[in-house]
Amino acid sequence: MLPFQRVTIIGLGLIGSSIARAVRRHMPTVRLSGYDADPDVREAARALDLCDDVTDQPGTAVIDADLVILCVPVGAVGAAAAALAEDLPAEAIVTDVGSSKSGVARALADALPRHAVVPAHPVAGTEQSGPAAGIATLFHQRWCILTPAAMTPPVAVARVAAFWEGLGAEIATMDAERHDLVLAVTSHLPHLIAYTIVGTASDMERVTSGEVIKYSAGGFRDFTRIAASDPIMWRDVFLANRDAVLDVLDRFSADLAGLRAAIERGDGDTLQALFTRTRAIRRGIVEQGQDDARPDFGRRHD
Amino acid sequence: MLPFQRVTIIGLGLIGSSIARAVRRHMPTVRLSGYDADPDVREAARALDLCDDVTDQPGTAVIDADLVILCVPVGAVGAAAAALAEDLPAEAIVTDVGSSKSGVARALADALPRHAVVPAHPVAGTEQSGPAAGIATLFHQRWCILTPAAMTPPVAVARVAAFWEGLGAEIATMDAERHDLVLAVTSHLPHLIAYTIVGTASDMERVTSGEVIKYSAGGFRDFTRIAASDPIMWRDVFLANRDAVLDVLDRFSADLAGLRAAIERGDGDTLQALFTRTRAIRRGIVEQGQDDARPDFGRRHD
Repeated sequence: MLPFQRVTIIGLGLIGSSIARAVRRHMPTVRLSGYDADPDVREAARALDLCDDVTDQPGTAVIDADLVILCVPVGAVGAAAAALAEDLPAEAIVTDVGSSKSGVARALADALPRHAVVPAHPVAGTEQSGPAAGIATLFHQRWCILTPAAMTPPVAVARVAAFWEGLGAEIATMDAERHDLVLAVTSHLPHLIAYTIVGTASDMERVTSGEVIKYSAGGFRDFTRIAASDPIMWRDVFLANRDAVLDVLDRFSADLAGLRAAIERGDGDTLQALFTRTRAIRRGIVEQGQDDARPDFGRRHD
Repeated sequence: MLPFQRVTIIGLGLIGSSIARAVRRHMPTVRLSGYDADPDVREAARALDLCDDVTDQPGTAVIDADLVILCVPVGAVGAAAAALAEDLPAEAIVTDVGSSKSGVARALADALPRHAVVPAHPVAGTEQSGPAAGIATLFHQRWCILTPAAMTPPVAVARVAAFWEGLGAEIATMDAERHDLVLAVTSHLPHLIAYTIVGTASDMERVTSGEVIKYSAGGFRDFTRIAASDPIMWRDVFLANRDAVLDVLDRFSADLAGLRAAIERGDGDTLQALFTRTRAIRRGIVEQGQDDARPDFGRRHD
């Protein structure tokens, strides 16, 4: 029993096109419609045969949908929902994939006051963007966090959960505020730090960008991957989740100042104690299947 | 023509054991001797057959060496050199693999005032440690930076360069101070930041470490790899390269404060401009073969 028969994806970038590929693989009888605001993306999506139908208007794409998934930057979710509201069937369930949830929930409730809305965040991705970058197995063994409002019909939540489980994901449910704090730690702060350090390194007049690139295998290159993520997506995340991000950032800055002081006073014991403790976190991540167990993320060494 | 016939490796952890494996693969006629201060590591190295001979005293390992490679934490290089000075043949060349070079050069010159010393830093590694973690191809296409003093005989530098080229590395030469500044940017700051953020995340009382691990695929897991690096090696790097690390760290902190202010005032243009610029750095790294071109470092998505 499929949770949905007619799925529409609005936004055919990395995540939208990964969902399309995953639906084709895991739910081949589902009728898939797609729309993207960018005509070039629509054309690419047609050439890649991502959906049964890619329409030139968002309303046309949702006209007979039973699930609509908004895969657009979080700052664009409200406008994307408003643009299809008039054509959306009364029984259709609407969800999204945004990396911050409180603001998205408000925007969706405002735009679609009479529809069942189940905000969702599949915690998965790569540094690449666009319809060609999608991966059918992107959500396998990854968590998809649902943040339904208290009055959302449980059956709508259950169907969206079943959809994501069908794509290989595991489901967690929490309220939007909790999501935004937890993801500020595990995703938003890491991206902010990565963007900053890559900017710092490329700006240092005393070290050339040629040197930064040449010797990046000493550690720097690890940061460049997430600092290559979609700029508009991430601009919107930091604007939408400002308070939680600043809160976590201040905590990080205080810890960094403490470590700076330890280096300045030559306090090797403090450094060694921290560096020993952080090792254990990596083991937990690998043991729970949330990262590649091979050394160096499985990079090729040949 | 091999640059050396009898190579001794002092310290058989990740780097020392990778050199041993690489020598076996690329220079199979070289006689390899090894020593490690830890009896368990010596035993493991014998079981792995890493060297022709693993000795219980450092002096015994170097008695007929023409190249001695010190693969110990930078804080231990001086003592390791002193421990074998008496038994070192007059013509032997000594090198190391330390991640900071100014202090190492001084320590080696003090311990071995009459020997040719060519400090070196192969910019390569994984987050794993110990003799079993070594990889024969670890240095392929990676840079090895030599930082010889002005009075070092050029022939000694050329032989050490030829040795590393023989293991698949590319050679760069610079003075030790320049090395320490460049590597502070490309390696030491990234490690310091990664250790800090992993510590911050695992300490936040309002977010459990279970949640940090579960949702780490949102970006955090990337940082946990280098924050799982050898604690003693990295303690020593920060103590040895204190001034350059603090200099670069202060630059990073100022940039982070600027980004914090942009988020606070809702300045999306500043965020988007930085995030667009950092994308280009990643492309340069991939184009120059310094990282895996596959998305997500080549992690498995199945």
